[in-house]
This record gives sequence, structure tokens and C-alpha cells, in this order.
Amino acid sequence: MRVLTILAHPQPGSFNHAIASAAIAALKAGGHEVIFHDLYTERFDPLLVSEEIPKGAGIDEALARHCRDLAEAEGIIVVHPNWWGMPPAILKGWVDRVVRPGLAYEFLEGDSGQGVPRGLLRARKALVFNTTNTGAKREQEAFGDPLQTLWKNCIFGLCGVKDFSRKSYGVVVTSTQEERRSWLDDVRQRVRECFPGYPEEDI
Amino acid sequence: MRVLTILAHPQPGSFNHAIASAAIAALKAGGHEVIFHDLYTERFDPLLVSEEIPKGAGIDEALARHCRDLAEAEGIIVVHPNWWGMPPAILKGWVDRVVRPGLAYEFLEGDSGQGVPRGLLRARKALVFNTTNTGAKREQEAFGDPLQTLWKNCIFGLCGVKDFSRKSYGVVVTSTQEERRSWLDDVRQRVRECFPGYPEEDI
Repeated sequence: MRVLTILAHPQPGSFNHAIASAAIAALKAGGHEVIFHDLYTERFDPLLVSEEIPKGAGIDEALARHCRDLAEAEGIIVVHPNWWGMPPAILKGWVDRVVRPGLAYEFLEGDSGQGVPRGLLRARKALVFNTTNTGAKREQEAFGDPLQTLWKNCIFGLCGVKDFSRKSYGVVVTSTQEERRSWLDDVRQRVRECFPGYPEEDI
Repeated sequence: MRVLTILAHPQPGSFNHAIASAAIAALKAGGHEVIFHDLYTERFDPLLVSEEIPKGAGIDEALARHCRDLAEAEGIIVVHPNWWGMPPAILKGWVDRVVRPGLAYEFLEGDSGQGVPRGLLRARKALVFNTTNTGAKREQEAFGDPLQTLWKNCIFGLCGVKDFSRKSYGVVVTSTQEERRSWLDDVRQRVRECFPGYPEEDI
């Protein structure tokens, strides 16, 4: 399978980078093709401007490349820290600009945009890995863990990607090397389960 | 009162701009001081880079200005469209960069960042206005209206701003001029209720 992997963390060498590397290694070991975008390294421009909003609007080559990669993906992996219950702005902007009408979703004819869109993505599976410095109990009780509905319903569900799973690792700031090692094992395991290799015994 | 007003919409003349103008006019009529940032017009840079993350890190003058305006605000109004259950990336980046540790919240001594932060903002009241093309029933049932917990709990609650209210206007794309006029009346009314003028009879 062709799996698009998106990473959004400003610090090279971060645990988010380690998660992305572990996921990519597991995908490749399973014989999958990986399309990787490290948004900070490639200085992705996150600002959706008004000229770009209409369906069918002209878009620049860098954005067109991202759109093609999303349209052609058979699976999607996203890796980012939980910042204020949301992705970092650079990844929010990737969603704003790349997850376009006509590519990722569309409205039925005669629907001017107020109705229920139909998902268009070819990808059938999405996997989101987050890091956090908030304990799971507090995240749920104080904040309602908004990242779950944002990725599952607002983004992937709307675009037709129904097979969704997400895992959040933390508390990172106080974690031991041993814990982080076991989290990376967990990443590899989840990637293998979501995207089984062929033949499986080669993994 | 000194009220910071933040607008994030790419299109001059948008209904979001009309909301911000109505809010500002109501504030000024009430005798309040308005500090206004139209993030797209001032080309706010939304990317939090790793050098900027530590508490007490050096920050550039444009960011320092935003930080001062947030620290000195006695009230806050935010205006933005609902894009994927979140603010546009430019406003997400304002949160990432401006709502800093040491300015908007802090951890107790001996807490390395995994605990419960203490809010530091001077502002006691926040008002968020959104526009949407999703009906209120579908927003709640399909998506859980994440903007509510994002602004109320994840951002303002964490920073100590307890008096919070939010109103979402829509469906904008199919609205009549009459509806939009009544929505702007509602904006003025909510601003006056949240930030009463002195003397009230002058409003």
C-alpha cells in the first residue's frame, strides 16, 4: 500500500520524529510505499488565502504536490504533539489547504455547501499518533480530548476514511527512556496491525 | 476596559470582518479601549519554532507586541470561521506562539510540566464569535462541536479566564441579508452584555 505519513514537530530529534521514523520503518518492512512529509523541515506554508478557497481554484506547485500525495494515498499516518487540544498551526494549515473540496470531499449537486459532504479520499485507513504532557484522565475530564473527534469525525470521517485509530503517548516530559522505548514498540505494533505486510512472515 | 479583539479571516469584506467591526463599534460606544489585530492583514507568522518554546526564550518584536497586548487585556474577543472544528491555522498559530508559559499560565515550582497549570491572564472575560456552514444539530451530533471545549477549557479555562461565552452564526453560505443583519445585532447585544458601558445610558 501507498501510505502518506505527515509529521509536524519543530524540533529535529524530538520524540515525534522518533515515532515517525518507527512508523516508516515498520511500513517499509511490511513492503509498503511511504510518502513522507516533515512539514517543518520543508517549511510548509500553512496560510489558506481567499484566492485558494474555491473548488477548482489555481494552486501553486508545492501545494499541488501535497494534494496529489493525499489523493493517491491508500493509507495515512499523522504524527504531532497535542498543542492546546489541536495540531500545531503548520499541520492545521496542511488540513486547511490540502484537504480540499473536489479532492477530499464534495457536496451533492444543488447543495451550496450547507449540507452533508461526501468523502472522496481513496485512503481507507488512517492512524494518528500524538504526544502529550497532560495525563489521560485530565485530558478527558478537563478538556474532553478534542483531538479524537477532530481527526476521527471532523477530518477523516468527513472525507470518507472510516477505519480510524489514534494513540496518544505521555506524559512525555517526565517519561523514562524505558517508557519511550516501549512506546516506540507500540507504534511499530500498531502500524503493523493497521497495515499488514505481505508476506506477513517477512516483517 | 481594555479589550483585545482578534480576527482571523482571509477575505476582506467577509462576514467575519463585519462581526469584528460590529463588536469593536459596540465596545467603543461603551467607552472601552480596543486593541485590534486582524491577523491576515498584518501577516501574522503562525509557526512556533523550537527556539521559541522555552519559558523566557527570546522572542521577536512583533511577537512581543502580541504578548504585551494579551497580558494587558482586561477582556478578549475572538472572531473566526469554523474550519474543520478549529480556528484557521493563522489563529491556531497565534495561540501556539502568543499564549505563552510565564505570560498566560505557569506550572507550580517543582512541576516539570505534567501537572495542572495555573492561569495568569489578567483578562476575566472572553467572547468568541464563529461562523459556520454546518447546521447546529449536525455540528453537535456528528462532530461534538469541538470549538466549544477548545476555547472554553483548553485555552481560556487553562489561562484563568473563567467568564466565557461563545456564539456561532450559520449557516452563512445560504443566509439572507436580513439574517446577517440580525446576527450583527446579536453580536452588538452580546458585546454590550459582556462588556457593559459606563455610563450605561450613553451606549
